[in-house]
Amino acid sequence: MRSFGSDNNSGIHPRILQAIKEANVDHAIGYGDDEWTRKAEEEIKKLLKKEDVKPLFVFNGTGANVVALQACTLPFHSILCPSTAHIAVDECGAPVKSTGASLKEIATPDGKLTPELVQPLLHGFGFEHHSQPKVIAISQTTELGTAYTPKEIKALADLAHRYGMYLFMDGTRLSNACAYLDLSLKEMTIDCGVDIFTIGGTKNGLMMGEVVVPLRKELAENLHYYRKQTTQLYSKMRFISAQFISYFNENIWLENARKSNAAAQRLANEMSKIKDVQITQKVQSNSVFFILPKSITDKLRERYFFYDWDETRNEMRLVCSWDTTENDILSFIDYLKQIAEKTDSCV
Amino acid sequence: MRSFGSDNNSGIHPRILQAIKEANVDHAIGYGDDEWTRKAEEEIKKLLKKEDVKPLFVFNGTGANVVALQACTLPFHSILCPSTAHIAVDECGAPVKSTGASLKEIATPDGKLTPELVQPLLHGFGFEHHSQPKVIAISQTTELGTAYTPKEIKALADLAHRYGMYLFMDGTRLSNACAYLDLSLKEMTIDCGVDIFTIGGTKNGLMMGEVVVPLRKELAENLHYYRKQTTQLYSKMRFISAQFISYFNENIWLENARKSNAAAQRLANEMSKIKDVQITQKVQSNSVFFILPKSITDKLRERYFFYDWDETRNEMRLVCSWDTTENDILSFIDYLKQIAEKTDSCV
Amino acid sequence: MRSFGSDNNSGIHPRILQAIKEANVDHAIGYGDDEWTRKAEEEIKKLLKKEDVKPLFVFNGTGANVVALQACTLPFHSILCPSTAHIAVDECGAPVKSTGASLKEIATPDGKLTPELVQPLLHGFGFEHHSQPKVIAISQTTELGTAYTPKEIKALADLAHRYGMYLFMDGTRLSNACAYLDLSLKEMTIDCGVDIFTIGGTKNGLMMGEVVVPLRKELAENLHYYRKQTTQLYSKMRFISAQFISYFNENIWLENARKSNAAAQRLANEMSKIKDVQITQKVQSNSVFFILPKSITDKLRERYFFYDWDETRNEMRLVCSWDTTENDILSFIDYLKQIAEKTDSCV
Amino acid sequence: MRSFGSDNNSGIHPRILQAIKEANVDHAIGYGDDEWTRKAEEEIKKLLKKEDVKPLFVFNGTGANVVALQACTLPFHSILCPSTAHIAVDECGAPVKSTGASLKEIATPDGKLTPELVQPLLHGFGFEHHSQPKVIAISQTTELGTAYTPKEIKALADLAHRYGMYLFMDGTRLSNACAYLDLSLKEMTIDCGVDIFTIGGTKNGLMMGEVVVPLRKELAENLHYYRKQTTQLYSKMRFISAQFISYFNENIWLENARKSNAAAQRLANEMSKIKDVQITQKVQSNSVFFILPKSITDKLRERYFFYDWDETRNEMRLVCSWDTTENDILSFIDYLKQIAEKTDSCV
Repeated sequence: MRSFGSDNNSGIHPRILQAIKEANVDHAIGYGDDEWTRKAEEEIKKLLKKEDVKPLFVFNGTGANVVALQACTLPFHSILCPSTAHIAVDECGAPVKSTGASLKEIATPDGKLTPELVQPLLHGFGFEHHSQPKVIAISQTTELGTAYTPKEIKALADLAHRYGMYLFMDGTRLSNACAYLDLSLKEMTIDCGVDIFTIGGTKNGLMMGEVVVPLRKELAENLHYYRKQTTQLYSKMRFISAQFISYFNENIWLENARKSNAAAQRLANEMSKIKDVQITQKVQSNSVFFILPKSITDKLRERYFFYDWDETRNEMRLVCSWDTTENDILSFIDYLKQIAEKTDSCV
Repeated sequence: MRSFGSDNNSGIHPRILQAIKEANVDHAIGYGDDEWTRKAEEEIKKLLKKEDVKPLFVFNGTGANVVALQACTLPFHSILCPSTAHIAVDECGAPVKSTGASLKEIATPDGKLTPELVQPLLHGFGFEHHSQPKVIAISQTTELGTAYTPKEIKALADLAHRYGMYLFMDGTRLSNACAYLDLSLKEMTIDCGVDIFTIGGTKNGLMMGEVVVPLRKELAENLHYYRKQTTQLYSKMRFISAQFISYFNENIWLENARKSNAAAQRLANEMSKIKDVQITQKVQSNSVFFILPKSITDKLRERYFFYDWDETRNEMRLVCSWDTTENDILSFIDYLKQIAEKTDSCV
Repeated sequence: MRSFGSDNNSGIHPRILQAIKEANVDHAIGYGDDEWTRKAEEEIKKLLKKEDVKPLFVFNGTGANVVALQACTLPFHSILCPSTAHIAVDECGAPVKSTGASLKEIATPDGKLTPELVQPLLHGFGFEHHSQPKVIAISQTTELGTAYTPKEIKALADLAHRYGMYLFMDGTRLSNACAYLDLSLKEMTIDCGVDIFTIGGTKNGLMMGEVVVPLRKELAENLHYYRKQTTQLYSKMRFISAQFISYFNENIWLENARKSNAAAQRLANEMSKIKDVQITQKVQSNSVFFILPKSITDKLRERYFFYDWDETRNEMRLVCSWDTTENDILSFIDYLKQIAEKTDSCV
Repeated sequence: MRSFGSDNNSGIHPRILQAIKEANVDHAIGYGDDEWTRKAEEEIKKLLKKEDVKPLFVFNGTGANVVALQACTLPFHSILCPSTAHIAVDECGAPVKSTGASLKEIATPDGKLTPELVQPLLHGFGFEHHSQPKVIAISQTTELGTAYTPKEIKALADLAHRYGMYLFMDGTRLSNACAYLDLSLKEMTIDCGVDIFTIGGTKNGLMMGEVVVPLRKELAENLHYYRKQTTQLYSKMRFISAQFISYFNENIWLENARKSNAAAQRLANEMSKIKDVQITQKVQSNSVFFILPKSITDKLRERYFFYDWDETRNEMRLVCSWDTTENDILSFIDYLKQIAEKTDSCV
């Protein structure tokens, strides 16, 4: 089976699996007090050119978001995010349940917040009747596959800090953004004024694993308690840490992101040549959003699994993975062409 | 490094790692909608001789407990458990935070609840000032390494049901109990009247993975939402499911439990021959609790990592793993004897 | 001081204060197990022409909403409401914090939900990644002073029920709606298919007190636990119940609402005669929304306290109370006219 | 009806009702921004001889406790309290639900914590698996009617501070303690090192009302948000504040406490003369705990309402109120004597 359903449909990169195998020797103290975890932390410190940072490894993306957001908020706070945000749409309310804070969703054309979009919600500070705005939450890349430029992130960070708020960055696909913009992890985060962020691994070649990186002292100090209480502390930690050592040290994080980005570019290019296909978002990472007549997508579904994005206008999403092959793309395009032509001729 | 610190200090059973490797082919739909997950569910159904059950796979033990307890409770309920329970002591308050319910801890000599111990807390039903007792929560085996007999579990289940309550069983080491008592999974759970339970994998040879098994319709119906909202839904599920297929199908769950149980028996036997050693709990699974003079345990710590259990009386815990070797035990015993004799001669 | 700031700026109706005084005799069992509470319940049953209903008395409106919403939801649910809703804007996130559920805000022109506005959010049922829609929450009258007709409410109730959801009605100003539409409490609630609602007292002449009225068995059964756990159970209950006996039995609820409605009508009429004043919402209860040049409202504020509604377009809100006098209105209008003219002549 | 069931069975002191009546003039800004609230705050500052304190007024005792404890804790903390504490037994789990923190109950003979009882729970600091101890919570007077001496409180405060923890004092019956020990509010709180406390009004002659008094900057800064989010912010605040002005300014808080204390002393003295009556706790406030044969208490219940305390040993509680009369006591004693004699002669 080959799928454009999600980047979590792909498997484990062979060098990552090898890293797990190599870590499977002898015994090791649990919960992160082991050599692998120390080394994985070192790799992140090197990429961030920062010594005084304590990254925490967790199981999955929802877990990473929830742990980070708990460190940023008290229950009377609010979190401002795009209405397409994973934390608003795809986590079954976990961020709200776990923090007790309110989520304020902001409509955007492309999944990206801007100071202009956020500003109107920045009021009521000190007024006890209102949830107090405390976090601007963005995803890099966004759920619509677009990437913030450093300048755009910095503008949001400045706005947040002007109001005593934090900028949180959900980095499930941060690697794809770094690859697309050709920027280092440091340039994409610390240099932009981000206060706390996550780094995805699961969707980019790991068996599993994400990182939460706090960049402020007060966000770091209780983070391990939040990780444990959120059920995201892994006992045999070395088997996640070992993956991250290879991921960063062998540059898999960037290599894989470049591959899935390139695949999406290719896929979008080929699709745009087909009549009836309307690409709806800029392709700045590994996903392609498009509109097609329902008669065609229904047919397409007989062979391919993918998600509706906006049913009201028959908008779909395809996602490429680190292991998407040229053949995967060409087969898909061939099949789509066939259907499109047939459906066309029937009209 | 060889450790008696915890059964999570050991690694992945080779056949389990092989199962992960074999599942790493092609693409698969995420979140459990895949063949591996279906097969893993089938294995559990076979062991339980029950078709209408939907086991859910999660990352870790705290996650499993929290998911199960949310299904059992509303925030005005209370959960009765031994004061040594993992949910009371070792989960940083996750069960209380996640359910909003109160935990009522009951002191026990051996980690086991009895109807006599529970009964005094069963009052105030219908009285709105009191949290309403709703769950009796036990661990099989207990945190003190003891095992409930089926009769003992049944007595607690009957008591719970008489009051409209549930019996929840934390089965982190359920395999060890089945091995020790030579009972099937069904005999240990369904036949005892348990309402919902978990099955541990991580501490018994898996890379990671636990199962939540609801045995009542009303506990099953929302369980997948609780799993997701608790951040315990794994996107690339096949890599946990594949482990469980081998775990159950190749009988690794019992083999490994038998090995660690036998190792603990051997360890306890050898230890009890040493003067000064006082074994404090019956060895009915893979752990050994003992008291030794502090001068000796301090010395022992120079070479071995293990946890204090009760500092006030210098009680320690050793845990054997599925991969504990005869050599591990004999080396430990040798070293302990050396220290004990030296310390002795100094007195 | 005379104020149009809010209907909570007014005091206690003399007959209500008298009722408190008369209840202040001897001793009475606490927490509602008293004669006054039974009588107050009877009054509500009479108005609803329904015997099998158990209204619960609470301190305040936020408390009433939070208690009711907890009965309707589990943490993986979502509550759909207008973006102007009191539960979304004015309760410091209490409904979200207390339920753990997510609030989905819907923009409306007039504070009123319609099936057309709600329908697009009714998807993802059974999909564990999404919070499950469970409650449509409306306010009668709305925070913009508009009133739903029974037909409009029924349409929302039908929609809710078609999806296994509940219709919750925040009735802080339910009396004003009944007065405006000349409908009984029963016609306004039960006959419209409402599942659970509240009745406000504090803003309509009571010293304090609101009622939560569950109209379904499953919403009633745990309501008293939610009231207690929400900190809304009053020990000396008779002093709230006594107020409600008079409120309903002596028809104060309707009399007062009629007075404040009429005052708002009068106020709006007079205001609309003044050049520059733009009334922005239909006056269907006791509040008047209007736009005035900032230069005028700044001046107005020197003598009168009132709240901004929408600062971006200088929209203000005035609220009349049960005790607003003709003189209150005429003095205000006189002063406004003076300012308007002066400001005018300056331009 | 005359009752020894609880001090909340009594009514409103006439001077308090008069204060409400006098506050019922004109309009006033809501939510505490009024003259009455400022004056009530002043009264408390005077009693505490402290200017930089901001007391918050709330509806009831459970609300006061929950607001205060939220200011003290994060969800990974634990709160240590006697197993008889109101927050553990009588609030339907509200403190646990609202804070997300764990409650650790400590058995005591007389409702009073001591450093010796608390110390064994002060471990695991920094260990992420354990809820972190953060609050020592005591009640003054205790739920068993006993009073801490200042020295006893200071010892607990010192212990708490040594571990970076807070001492919280539930002062539902703080007036009774001040009256019993003849100490000022300041001597009973600030001088003992208490970090945050409450002052009860409802059980001591108010219609309703309690105060939360934070004595540390970090506990004060978010308290008003917690009050609002807990549903404890009263809109027509002047009617609670006005009660507290009289309560403190006219010394009603101490007068009433002295009366109910004296009544309890008298009641206990008379009871202890009756054969079969065993007084089980020192009478240091307004309640009397005693054991009587069940045959006698059953009979007593035919005429009097009161609560069981410990059913296993037939221990009962009687509570006197500020308005308990000599006649109330003598009638009760007469009736008890009658029963006791009859029951006696029957044996």
